[in-house]
Amino acid sequence: MYRSHTCGELRLADAGKEVTLAGWVQRIRDKGALVWIDLRDRYGITQLFLDSNSDPKLVEQARTFGREFVIQAKGTVIERESKNPNMPTGDIEIRVNGFTLLNSSKTPPFTIEDNSDGGDDLRMKYRYLDLRRTPVRQNLELRHRMAMLVRNYLSDLNFMEIETPMLIKSTPEGARDFVVPSRMNPGEFYALPQSPQQYKQLLMVAGFDRYFQIVRCFRDEDLRADRQPEFTQIDCEMSFVEQEDVLNTFEGLAKHLFKEMKGLEFDQFPRMTWHDAMKYYGSDKPDIRFGMKFVELNEVVKGKGFGLFDNAELVVGINALGCSEYTRKQLDALTEFVKRPQVGAGGMVYIKYNTDGTFKSSVDKFYTPDDLKAIAEKFGSKPGDLMLILCGEAMKTRVQLNALRLEMGNQLGLRDPNKYAPLWVIDFPLLEWDEETQRYYAMHHPFTAPKPEDEALLDDPSKWGDIRANAYDIVMNGVEVGGGSIRIHDRTLQNKMFHTLGFTDEKAQEQFGFLMGAFEYGAPPHAGLAFGFDRLCSLFGGADSIRDFIAFPKNNAGRDVMSGSPAPIAQEQLDELQIGLNLKI
Amino acid sequence: MYRSHTCGELRLADAGKEVTLAGWVQRIRDKGALVWIDLRDRYGITQLFLDSNSDPKLVEQARTFGREFVIQAKGTVIERESKNPNMPTGDIEIRVNGFTLLNSSKTPPFTIEDNSDGGDDLRMKYRYLDLRRTPVRQNLELRHRMAMLVRNYLSDLNFMEIETPMLIKSTPEGARDFVVPSRMNPGEFYALPQSPQQYKQLLMVAGFDRYFQIVRCFRDEDLRADRQPEFTQIDCEMSFVEQEDVLNTFEGLAKHLFKEMKGLEFDQFPRMTWHDAMKYYGSDKPDIRFGMKFVELNEVVKGKGFGLFDNAELVVGINALGCSEYTRKQLDALTEFVKRPQVGAGGMVYIKYNTDGTFKSSVDKFYTPDDLKAIAEKFGSKPGDLMLILCGEAMKTRVQLNALRLEMGNQLGLRDPNKYAPLWVIDFPLLEWDEETQRYYAMHHPFTAPKPEDEALLDDPSKWGDIRANAYDIVMNGVEVGGGSIRIHDRTLQNKMFHTLGFTDEKAQEQFGFLMGAFEYGAPPHAGLAFGFDRLCSLFGGADSIRDFIAFPKNNAGRDVMSGSPAPIAQEQLDELQIGLNLKI
Repeated sequence: MYRSHTCGELRLADAGKEVTLAGWVQRIRDKGALVWIDLRDRYGITQLFLDSNSDPKLVEQARTFGREFVIQAKGTVIERESKNPNMPTGDIEIRVNGFTLLNSSKTPPFTIEDNSDGGDDLRMKYRYLDLRRTPVRQNLELRHRMAMLVRNYLSDLNFMEIETPMLIKSTPEGARDFVVPSRMNPGEFYALPQSPQQYKQLLMVAGFDRYFQIVRCFRDEDLRADRQPEFTQIDCEMSFVEQEDVLNTFEGLAKHLFKEMKGLEFDQFPRMTWHDAMKYYGSDKPDIRFGMKFVELNEVVKGKGFGLFDNAELVVGINALGCSEYTRKQLDALTEFVKRPQVGAGGMVYIKYNTDGTFKSSVDKFYTPDDLKAIAEKFGSKPGDLMLILCGEAMKTRVQLNALRLEMGNQLGLRDPNKYAPLWVIDFPLLEWDEETQRYYAMHHPFTAPKPEDEALLDDPSKWGDIRANAYDIVMNGVEVGGGSIRIHDRTLQNKMFHTLGFTDEKAQEQFGFLMGAFEYGAPPHAGLAFGFDRLCSLFGGADSIRDFIAFPKNNAGRDVMSGSPAPIAQEQLDELQIGLNLKI
Repeated sequence: MYRSHTCGELRLADAGKEVTLAGWVQRIRDKGALVWIDLRDRYGITQLFLDSNSDPKLVEQARTFGREFVIQAKGTVIERESKNPNMPTGDIEIRVNGFTLLNSSKTPPFTIEDNSDGGDDLRMKYRYLDLRRTPVRQNLELRHRMAMLVRNYLSDLNFMEIETPMLIKSTPEGARDFVVPSRMNPGEFYALPQSPQQYKQLLMVAGFDRYFQIVRCFRDEDLRADRQPEFTQIDCEMSFVEQEDVLNTFEGLAKHLFKEMKGLEFDQFPRMTWHDAMKYYGSDKPDIRFGMKFVELNEVVKGKGFGLFDNAELVVGINALGCSEYTRKQLDALTEFVKRPQVGAGGMVYIKYNTDGTFKSSVDKFYTPDDLKAIAEKFGSKPGDLMLILCGEAMKTRVQLNALRLEMGNQLGLRDPNKYAPLWVIDFPLLEWDEETQRYYAMHHPFTAPKPEDEALLDDPSKWGDIRANAYDIVMNGVEVGGGSIRIHDRTLQNKMFHTLGFTDEKAQEQFGFLMGAFEYGAPPHAGLAFGFDRLCSLFGGADSIRDFIAFPKNNAGRDVMSGSPAPIAQEQLDELQIGLNLKI
């Protein structure tokens, strides 16, 4: 071993000990006769001390070291003259009596400090240096602890982690597969799993009863910000359970994580139907850390001669507490915000409920103070509040108002990353209509069961949009961190579902035949849920980007700029695989 | 929840309880008025009892059930009249008062019993039914427990599990990569990792100090029996350590597994140099559950006029205790065994040391009783033993004798799967010569460090074959379950190594540039080891095949016969990827 102790563990009680440390040179302070070196490793920083009066050669040697050099130092633990209470090792330093240079370092292209001077691209290229920074290291430490907690918790509940294959069969439903040409079976391809969905259902058919896996999944999608082509799921499935059992089990897991990671305890998580989530928050993943629930205004605003409202399918708004003093400029900025293409509203109406009890609005021409008072009452507004109103086609307007609500939450500091508001969203629609392909798609996936009371609607295509699924999402702070459903375990119902999704018998047989075949041999009732593990980590880390919680992430072009991947491969490799490039010029 | 209890938990103390069970019909015994059903789930089997005198309709319903039907049964726990001491639930049965059929089942294509009547191919096709069998389920339970033990043990030692990418850059060294065409970067490919080797080394450069990962790896090799295109490793790496530290750390892990899984305790594992392993066992993974160490005989057998021995580079044998009574037929069979093409020996010489002190050998013509006695003394043979001797080119003969030794071990019952003999094999050669390509290859991988005392030999190509590596394997019962090495952390030495392996600077830069670049920024001394997890599980399960310890294995053609993967993909998929098939007719 190159060291007797790490750079994070020595304390005053160790004074007098002869120790050997090894690590990276964080910083050298050279005061002429006296030199101090901060030596860093994963566990902390320890100060080394050199005195040229007692050993001038050692000081000379130390002056050859630069930032990020790897050195071994031998010496005696001594009490510091000026202690640093901000460092766990701040009471001591090492009086060095010998160095070994283990490796030198070029000057790093950016500073290895909590706040680095390196830009994103540079830090991605030198990811191995970025990973030396404490905040990045802590993110991966958090991820490791989370994974251990999840595994031990689920294992204690009799869940078994079972590894499912990575080289599987391509399925057309859902996102695009990454494919892998098979050399041994020329002309044929494996696919990388978008999720172990079918395998975990087969494990239920096989009687495994409680399965989980922290597993890599793959989606060849055009990458939006903060999507990765490979990502990690906590994938779970259970047999002989109903929705209530699944919700309780994974709520238990989430509470366990909050308790262990954050010291937070929760009562039962609130539940909201998808219908209510859309109606009151314009989102299937409402951020309920703060209020500003939507208030629908049709009955109080229509028929007063304001055409925009009169002709709108829905007039709906939010009440911003204590914002009546918003300036013209602030209100204009909000209007600009909702008119941005990403939001897409035509405009915004505001009503200020001034602290003196009067009203000032952008629609004073059409509404009397009494009208405005009636609207304020509908909102439950108090003097000092600000009402913000959008109108238009119902669903679109709700989604626009969701963006405005979140923006107001940000402006008012209501979205504290250290506050956590978990929520179950339940009763999702089973199917969603796609205008482009003019067919229904499974909102969750084709194995999701309809609610038993809605099952009959499958026989009436005009009602397909109304069918509710036995599906649920777990949402925290406006982020969907997991979701799942009760599965169809009956082959007849599964067939009906495939037909609804426009699969011919042949296509269904070709794509899912083995799963449907399995269902003929005694499939138990079963259900599952998967958490997005990258996302869960970033949420617990109080950060927005999942990229910070992945050791070696890819950029938005799916590229690892550090290793230069993907890259062309040799012609011999292509020949062996019996494939060729057909590049469009 | 569809059940109040599992099928494995009810005991006599539960008598009188009203319970609900759910599971699969294992077997129905219909004695007319009385009917018993064995109901099975993952946790066990519970007997259900029906009495047509008290409820004839229930018996009628039960008669509609077949094997593997999924049912829910409600009833009362009662004490059995005739107890079954072989079942944990054998003291009780459930007097059923109501059934719900949850799912029916076609008749399974083979019996779901410990010893199934299904052949390998059939069981692979219906893997989800094979997984219902207790021995197969227990294999996966063992695997889950092993993984949990490994993770908790390493995590307690400050190892962090860090997920490395699955979509990486193709490297030409070693086995063939599986590649993944990138749609977003046409003409470019990712590779699936053969191991996270470079990433774990980067993590050491990044200061993570102690890393592990239970991780899927991929090799596109022509599959020999019991190789899988995807397999799982316990991958580990440590910084600031020497060989002794690595061996102690992972010996600790192995001992922990033996203790927890098997109740076995071990002293320090023996260590053997690669040189001794080859000299005394003809294998770099000796099975030391039994003796029969090789004895080299050149000095006692040469110069007696037996040309075969006189002309051989090496005459070497083993002494089989108490086998002097082997018949002519048995000896002929052994000769046939060593002459098989898989072994490749020209023949075998035997010397029987009869219990009366006389000798009988296949070379009596050339050797006097005194000569044979001298040979016997060299062997340390006693009356009643049998000496078996091969000769020829030294290394080839050793490898042949290894096959014979293992065969004798099998014949004599010395290879008890319930006995465990772990061993470290150390000091592997750094390089091995390949006749076909006329160059040296890294025996372990190109990042393995030579032993410091042999480093100078890199400057003399004629000595390259003599260089020993700082590399080690952990071997159990003749199976290599893990291996690793001290890594090169110095860029100059790494460059020299690449040159030795015939890489041009450009090629090395292209393939490993990012790793070598990383080494310029303060790489610490580091080392690692990886266990083959599938193999480790099969060893702890006392089985030969890794396939039995993988939930959904592939066959020798790399095919999953259950899902029909790999398979052709749609032309649109190929078009999107801008690749085409170039099938050789």
